[in-house]
Amino acid sequence: MISTETLALLRSHRSIRKFKDKALPAGLLEEILVAGQCAATSSFLQGATIIRVTDKAKRQQLAEAAGNQPYVSSAAEFMVFCADLNRAGQCCEQYEKPFSGEFTEQFIIATVDTALLAQNVVVAAEASGLGICYIGGIRNNPRQVADLLDLPKGVYPVFGLCLGFPDQDPECKPRLPLPVIVKENSYNTDGDREAIAAYDNEIQEYYRTRTGGGHGISWSEQVSTLLSEKSRPHMRDFLKEQGFTFK
Amino acid sequence: MISTETLALLRSHRSIRKFKDKALPAGLLEEILVAGQCAATSSFLQGATIIRVTDKAKRQQLAEAAGNQPYVSSAAEFMVFCADLNRAGQCCEQYEKPFSGEFTEQFIIATVDTALLAQNVVVAAEASGLGICYIGGIRNNPRQVADLLDLPKGVYPVFGLCLGFPDQDPECKPRLPLPVIVKENSYNTDGDREAIAAYDNEIQEYYRTRTGGGHGISWSEQVSTLLSEKSRPHMRDFLKEQGFTFK
Repeated sequence: MISTETLALLRSHRSIRKFKDKALPAGLLEEILVAGQCAATSSFLQGATIIRVTDKAKRQQLAEAAGNQPYVSSAAEFMVFCADLNRAGQCCEQYEKPFSGEFTEQFIIATVDTALLAQNVVVAAEASGLGICYIGGIRNNPRQVADLLDLPKGVYPVFGLCLGFPDQDPECKPRLPLPVIVKENSYNTDGDREAIAAYDNEIQEYYRTRTGGGHGISWSEQVSTLLSEKSRPHMRDFLKEQGFTFK
Repeated sequence: MISTETLALLRSHRSIRKFKDKALPAGLLEEILVAGQCAATSSFLQGATIIRVTDKAKRQQLAEAAGNQPYVSSAAEFMVFCADLNRAGQCCEQYEKPFSGEFTEQFIIATVDTALLAQNVVVAAEASGLGICYIGGIRNNPRQVADLLDLPKGVYPVFGLCLGFPDQDPECKPRLPLPVIVKENSYNTDGDREAIAAYDNEIQEYYRTRTGGGHGISWSEQVSTLLSEKSRPHMRDFLKEQGFTFK
């Protein structure tokens, strides 16, 4: 039965940050992308474009733009997943209709389309024995990334994706207990505090014991830092320049 | 080898809008959600919350809020996938740090986290013989949905998901040709016009021949309408009320 194998595959996900110096066999990337593309798409928009970066100099520049993540240049494949309203916008022109890609809703559907497609690509890649790592770091310098890849208005880079044969075998990172993230009929946080406290201990232990040691901080402390800092405050203006005005 | 089966599974995706009146076997939903939860999460935020709706009256109200989609109330399971900065925001309080969930970037990471998790849930569900349908329609009346599910600030409903045993067997809907959505090294539309024109014919044919007949319009015409209309213009204000101010 398919179920068991695919569910086990999904449960075995961990990010890979060290890849073998080995190219993908011919045809595999295409097969993975075709499978990925079968993900659902909102209102049939198909609002995602993938830029596969094979140019070594561009790879290096992207690795730097993403905060010096070496695997961006060393992975067998690196792709930038872009939310794209430009392609469908051209169709407005063709049918002599006004283009209104400035609504927040349209930003959402293109972003979600891109993420659904990417996650399908990830599952297809992992099913093929490859490892992956999402690179949100490209949003550190989105203008530089957009210029490097000639992204027109209506298109923005959501994240990058490294893909290749793993040269490491890290543990899976424990997730929040299911009752914390799944609620019945209403948003209800009863019991969450205790469950998160227990999870925090688990995560501290995970960090302490993982290969190479670790900082041993809890999930709660980690995300408290994430959400208390100014988070890529340039994104708003960058997106505005790209035509996403959150109307 | 896992690869072939999982890739074939991904390629076989189509939305299901008619479900058997049959509950999921005990434990399956939990298994699917645990597998889904293993999806990557940006900066370890885990910024998604799932509201499983079992209350019949709420289901009915959600079906109406989503534009009278009957399968929202008739599917074995219906869940609302929410982007959630509230949970991590509580951690800021715990660590006496200011909460800054108003950045556009934080909206993006929570939205992307939610979509990655959902798509993993979808793959796990389909691997288990279930059918699914994403329900973007809940964004027709997001305030009503948020009130019905008691969503606090920092949380918004991204989409719903119907899940159950399929009672129909629709064809897969053809996707844009791969070279239109995958580019090498830069955003380059050479050849796209011709490729899209051929695809438009394919889609017109698909609509004409599918069960129940169809409107026979092309992809280009369909998305030109989508992007020329005011698209859920209430979303901006609704999100602002929920604390997402796109700073």
